[in-house]
Amino acid sequence: MTKWKELLYLLKQAAIYGHTSSLLAWDVQTYMPKDAGPGRDGIFAFMATKTAEKLQNPRVGDILAELADDAELDQNQRRFIARMTDICQRTRAVPLGLVRALAEATSRAEREWRKARKTSSFAMFLPHLIEVFSLVRAKADAIGFSDHPYDALLPDFEPGMTAKMAKETLLPLRQPLSELVRLIGSKPAPEHAFLKGYFPPERQLLLAGIVARRCGFDFDQGRLDQVPGHPMTITTGPKDTRITTRLFPQEMSPGLFAAIHETGHALYCQGMDSLFDWVFLDTGLSMAIHESQSRMFENIVGRSLPFWKFFFPTLQAMFAPSFDDVSAEQLWKAVNVVKPSLIRIEADEATYNLHILLRMELEMAMLDRSLNPADLPEAWNAKMEEYLGIRPDNDANGCMQDIHWSHGYCGYFPTYALGNLLSAQLWATIEQEIPGLADEIARGNLGSLLEWLRKNVHQWGPVYTLPELTQQVTGQPLNPEIWLAYINNKYAQVYDL
Amino acid sequence: MTKWKELLYLLKQAAIYGHTSSLLAWDVQTYMPKDAGPGRDGIFAFMATKTAEKLQNPRVGDILAELADDAELDQNQRRFIARMTDICQRTRAVPLGLVRALAEATSRAEREWRKARKTSSFAMFLPHLIEVFSLVRAKADAIGFSDHPYDALLPDFEPGMTAKMAKETLLPLRQPLSELVRLIGSKPAPEHAFLKGYFPPERQLLLAGIVARRCGFDFDQGRLDQVPGHPMTITTGPKDTRITTRLFPQEMSPGLFAAIHETGHALYCQGMDSLFDWVFLDTGLSMAIHESQSRMFENIVGRSLPFWKFFFPTLQAMFAPSFDDVSAEQLWKAVNVVKPSLIRIEADEATYNLHILLRMELEMAMLDRSLNPADLPEAWNAKMEEYLGIRPDNDANGCMQDIHWSHGYCGYFPTYALGNLLSAQLWATIEQEIPGLADEIARGNLGSLLEWLRKNVHQWGPVYTLPELTQQVTGQPLNPEIWLAYINNKYAQVYDL
Repeated sequence: MTKWKELLYLLKQAAIYGHTSSLLAWDVQTYMPKDAGPGRDGIFAFMATKTAEKLQNPRVGDILAELADDAELDQNQRRFIARMTDICQRTRAVPLGLVRALAEATSRAEREWRKARKTSSFAMFLPHLIEVFSLVRAKADAIGFSDHPYDALLPDFEPGMTAKMAKETLLPLRQPLSELVRLIGSKPAPEHAFLKGYFPPERQLLLAGIVARRCGFDFDQGRLDQVPGHPMTITTGPKDTRITTRLFPQEMSPGLFAAIHETGHALYCQGMDSLFDWVFLDTGLSMAIHESQSRMFENIVGRSLPFWKFFFPTLQAMFAPSFDDVSAEQLWKAVNVVKPSLIRIEADEATYNLHILLRMELEMAMLDRSLNPADLPEAWNAKMEEYLGIRPDNDANGCMQDIHWSHGYCGYFPTYALGNLLSAQLWATIEQEIPGLADEIARGNLGSLLEWLRKNVHQWGPVYTLPELTQQVTGQPLNPEIWLAYINNKYAQVYDL
Repeated sequence: MTKWKELLYLLKQAAIYGHTSSLLAWDVQTYMPKDAGPGRDGIFAFMATKTAEKLQNPRVGDILAELADDAELDQNQRRFIARMTDICQRTRAVPLGLVRALAEATSRAEREWRKARKTSSFAMFLPHLIEVFSLVRAKADAIGFSDHPYDALLPDFEPGMTAKMAKETLLPLRQPLSELVRLIGSKPAPEHAFLKGYFPPERQLLLAGIVARRCGFDFDQGRLDQVPGHPMTITTGPKDTRITTRLFPQEMSPGLFAAIHETGHALYCQGMDSLFDWVFLDTGLSMAIHESQSRMFENIVGRSLPFWKFFFPTLQAMFAPSFDDVSAEQLWKAVNVVKPSLIRIEADEATYNLHILLRMELEMAMLDRSLNPADLPEAWNAKMEEYLGIRPDNDANGCMQDIHWSHGYCGYFPTYALGNLLSAQLWATIEQEIPGLADEIARGNLGSLLEWLRKNVHQWGPVYTLPELTQQVTGQPLNPEIWLAYINNKYAQVYDL
């Protein structure tokens, strides 16, 4: 056990740099003064380099190798050893100079993206996009791949995943989704004009906090803040997971569902086994599992009728008289209206995965150089037309809407769609294992749901891969049919199909 | 010049750890969730150890030695080399294990102090106070001293200062101050009951921001936040200096003057020569010079009649009808009422230095072990009675009111009093060099004051010691008589003495 302890000690150093970077990033998005950005770039680069340096430490590699077959370790420890071995191998492949350059470039690019998005100026963002993608490609080359450079990057977010697997799982969704969207489009939409109005942001934030707390978010171990940019969940250390949301005065649903989405992420982080505090994987291994939690809370829970049976009176009271002449059922239908729209994070469940497919295809193309970043706006708009039948009015509402590419996150997007699939598959199991859950939720009791998730999903964050968890909990591999059945069933109810 | 650059590069690494620690500390005081504290202790200890490690790097010592007589360096660079040489020597004397232990203990002690102060429980705080003072004493022993252990610690805050010098400069103030306070006590106090009332904290924060901005605080390079604890100025990197204030709903002056005090600190940081960005001394060398700026803005500027001629209409408008029947002159007199009181940071200028003398004597006594920390409350209360004629009603308003000791800051307090002296001495020079300044301030123009301070004081932050700056700017050594003359003159006006 001495080696295990030494390993944890060495990994804690990497985790300290990682968590400190997270606090620095949270600060950038919430409270950092404007002119501090350039100074911050250098700090990020320093922290990223140090994190990599600690993981590249040969002693870490040696201990991992020695512990791989250690009979005294339990199954979770062995799984953890296997995961860390992969991570350290991948980290060792990337030269520290590239780590530093990528950290500097993404920190700068994210700041410039924020500025450029305000005026929808793709020209201002383009040089940064080019720089980031060329560095990300260099990283893929350093790690190595046989089929597609995407294969080298996906495991940062989804261990074991390849471009081929992602495409094989997700592309078949396009046809049935297009048909569903077409069918829904032929029906009259439920009334939803009442979702627009004036909703004081401070009340929106209050409601988001009430909902997050009711879902189980522990405010002694986290925070909720309003940000001007992209909503995020950031863990800055054990017992410190912070969520953010973006609020629009004229519409309360985007900010509320973003907050519920981030709450799902945060519950996952707050529920991980504290045995793995400080070991670098303490925010989870698989982003698809992560997204299964956020998308489950946002959609399966947050856009369900039982959920609104409970929360509707609070909503009515807080925004009176906006919803005085509306019922809980009408509200539920309104937040489930399907309408091809420009912004991914505001998309309904039927069109959401189409937004993901588009991004996955475009980032793969920029990565294998079949798409020049300069041509991204046109490629984006053409695909939006093809998949959703609409064209962005400007690039801020088009190819510049997401933070991911400025951040160097290439390979993250598929995990949203994989997370959607997993969320429905988990939910099918949950419904079997917690009879009467819908009634509990309608009474505002989300406790047994959280307990089930902690026991079956959350605590395993640092050790289970997506295939392992899916098999273990649901008894079968990831099965897109389950999600399609869920979504068809949902819209059958909302639209009386 | 290559060596100079290498030095800056090596010091930047120490500065990154230092600034990151500062952000972590700002976060603790503003937004960190409750349960994250224990995890944060470990990060602080890590950062403190790394900072010391970087300064202990033998290569840094070698370059400093080589550059000490380098003819190519200009005078400021040579001053900087001399300062850094001192700092590195002192840092090398302290074992890293002690650095880590002290960082862990003070992070824990500060958190426990916060808790204990709420219920005024000295018993809860005592074990932490004992631990911190025993580690601080161990640090003094490691650094070494010939006369008093205080001599080993003072230079952390005031390079070149000794216990003897501090006592010789400050103790003679006691007699004339006691006489002044007694004389004032025999006169009727100006009306000041109108300072109590109800002042919505959000408006107080708004006013504090308006005043800070008018004084020259650049909000693109800083922030102002409300905190439940001790007001602070924290620099987390170049172009990022953050101030905090504590607000009381029933009284607006403590929060406002605390904000002006911190604004003075922040202006000093924002005005330093950017040549020294990232070189570890970029928040200044001498805390007495630092305090001269905060105390100047708080008292000489902020409690002056011209200042209130300008700001009074805003104050009236923001807190109407509280000040409807008051004049600017009445307000000015009210915020200058002298009354022996329990809380240092709310003390008037006549009694403030007596609060400092008390703290200086008690911390010296705990350090040389002539006072057992367990006996601190009684010693504190006795001295309060002796110096100010009042006894604290509880320890939260007595020996537990300040953050400093929990933080391990032993030797900081004298710099407040030295700063007071310097502020008056600088002001005497300023009045000669900026004719008509009072009229400018009465018109809300603090620009020429800031310009003068930047040119003569702020930019030199990382290079001048207190004696150097005092001589250079005022043409004579620090002279307590100038401050005594200032204070006698001020109260002659306020009290018609």
